[in-house]
Amino acid sequence: VNEFELIRRFFAVQPVSRREVALGIGDDAALLEPPSGMQAVLTTDLLVAGVDFLPGADPVSVGHKALAVNLSDLAAMGAEPAWYLVALVLPRVDESWLAGFCEGLYGLARRYHVALVGGDLSRGAETVIAIQAGGWVPRGEALTRRGAQPGDRLFVTGELGGAGLALRHQRGECHLSVAEAATVADRLERPMPRVLAGQRLRLVATSAIDLSDGLLSDLGHVLAASGVGARVFLERLPLPVVYRERFDELGWDLALAHGDDYELLFTVPQANLERLEALREALDCPITEIGEITAEEGLALIDRDGRLYTPRRAQRGYDHFA
Amino acid sequence: VNEFELIRRFFAVQPVSRREVALGIGDDAALLEPPSGMQAVLTTDLLVAGVDFLPGADPVSVGHKALAVNLSDLAAMGAEPAWYLVALVLPRVDESWLAGFCEGLYGLARRYHVALVGGDLSRGAETVIAIQAGGWVPRGEALTRRGAQPGDRLFVTGELGGAGLALRHQRGECHLSVAEAATVADRLERPMPRVLAGQRLRLVATSAIDLSDGLLSDLGHVLAASGVGARVFLERLPLPVVYRERFDELGWDLALAHGDDYELLFTVPQANLERLEALREALDCPITEIGEITAEEGLALIDRDGRLYTPRRAQRGYDHFA
Repeated sequence: VNEFELIRRFFAVQPVSRREVALGIGDDAALLEPPSGMQAVLTTDLLVAGVDFLPGADPVSVGHKALAVNLSDLAAMGAEPAWYLVALVLPRVDESWLAGFCEGLYGLARRYHVALVGGDLSRGAETVIAIQAGGWVPRGEALTRRGAQPGDRLFVTGELGGAGLALRHQRGECHLSVAEAATVADRLERPMPRVLAGQRLRLVATSAIDLSDGLLSDLGHVLAASGVGARVFLERLPLPVVYRERFDELGWDLALAHGDDYELLFTVPQANLERLEALREALDCPITEIGEITAEEGLALIDRDGRLYTPRRAQRGYDHFA
Repeated sequence: VNEFELIRRFFAVQPVSRREVALGIGDDAALLEPPSGMQAVLTTDLLVAGVDFLPGADPVSVGHKALAVNLSDLAAMGAEPAWYLVALVLPRVDESWLAGFCEGLYGLARRYHVALVGGDLSRGAETVIAIQAGGWVPRGEALTRRGAQPGDRLFVTGELGGAGLALRHQRGECHLSVAEAATVADRLERPMPRVLAGQRLRLVATSAIDLSDGLLSDLGHVLAASGVGARVFLERLPLPVVYRERFDELGWDLALAHGDDYELLFTVPQANLERLEALREALDCPITEIGEITAEEGLALIDRDGRLYTPRRAQRGYDHFA
């Protein structure tokens, strides 16, 4: 089995076709026809074995997550995902691993109708997956980190801390029953990017970001880019049931600083709150108001008793080189 | 020094600005405004330490080559390169390596006015660079591998075999003087993608591909995609002077099968030969006619005496998993 054969068997036939793909896999490059009135949205995210997933992790989950983290970035811009390219480094030819990887990758690609249009394959010491994904957003309607205004309400989709709790359980640092672990395992292994929510929040939200590095770190990016501050009411943070049940043991750390949840954090001005309410039914995930944007810079975390909460340790998000 | 700090110091400020980049580095994703009448062209190529370059290689060359191999793919489509994203895995924080890498990367980016619009940075066992590059081509004018027709003449840009010869010299498999080695070293370490030639060949060539895997392998892709054959006259292959001087020792192998030269191979119909001649002056590299496309499938290599040449060993191009 050689490189071309692997590409032919696993990647040349992919399940999604899109009208704007004028030329897909199989030439020096792909050709796309930009739909009129749209801006292109581009992102890239890496997954490295031993850092972002265990070398023995289920390849279906790895394939899913490698694309999910990229689609999450597009969702945070309010974009419709359209295409992706996969650069893959493998330590050896392992066809069963590749079959699982493609199952996870293509399963998510099919769900959001995203076409694989190119890639590269090489050999190396460890598995590395670099996906570049792109999509479209109507001109001028992209959500960025810059638009938050004092008085805007702060919202998150879904729940926070589930991925971190699942990882602690996997590491044996926290005991969950099999049934409990199952309720958060997917948050770590197969996060579902908020693709539809991101698109529906265009023209309603003033800013958005996806929670990959942790609420404190990612909210910090929005505050810095927008030149504002925020007040977050901790008791409003949407925690998974199993997290709530262990709150005395866990505290706020996993919800504030772990990241890896790939939920959206977004701001909505008072004037758009009614439109947001009208949207709730159309979203495929719950949304929760957790605080508000302030003119005064800095982030104030308010605890159940109305007091300022100081994070127990440096909760600045994941740093690959720390 | 943490991850955000490395990004801020080395990647947040990049040297090229382009009008179509509505939002560059620093948000969840980049935003591009597609110029009207253009199709987007997308490619991705990996470089892995120990496979594509020696771990001790000059980081300036590594940065240059990582972008060059991607721009070469865009050149082969006749595209104007416009943007790129860099996904980078590093075994450790090495600021002097990063400074060199960015020098090589940004030097080439400046030359062809290509803007860095995003990236990702992670830690891993070995250095891996996955660049995704994109550009624009007027709708319907892209060069592909599919358009070669019987009777078309076959051309290459520049010279063949220089990169292979430089690698043999580096490995001690072939002795070159310092002066001789210098004439081919850049072909291996800092190949210059044929960006301008590719764009000028639109509407003149019927097909094109870049020579990354070797002439036999890459021409084979064109023949298969176009459903045609070809005749190549070996004595016409443009070899570097230092290769010619060692021809008895080296034979045709490096020119036919080594690849890594990143020249363009393209086909031109009889009717366009005058336009091609008129173009010669405007190209920034020599071009050489090496053969012709035939209706009969298969590739015939004709030697100096007019006889059919059979490659000495399987010369099917580089296979990462062989």
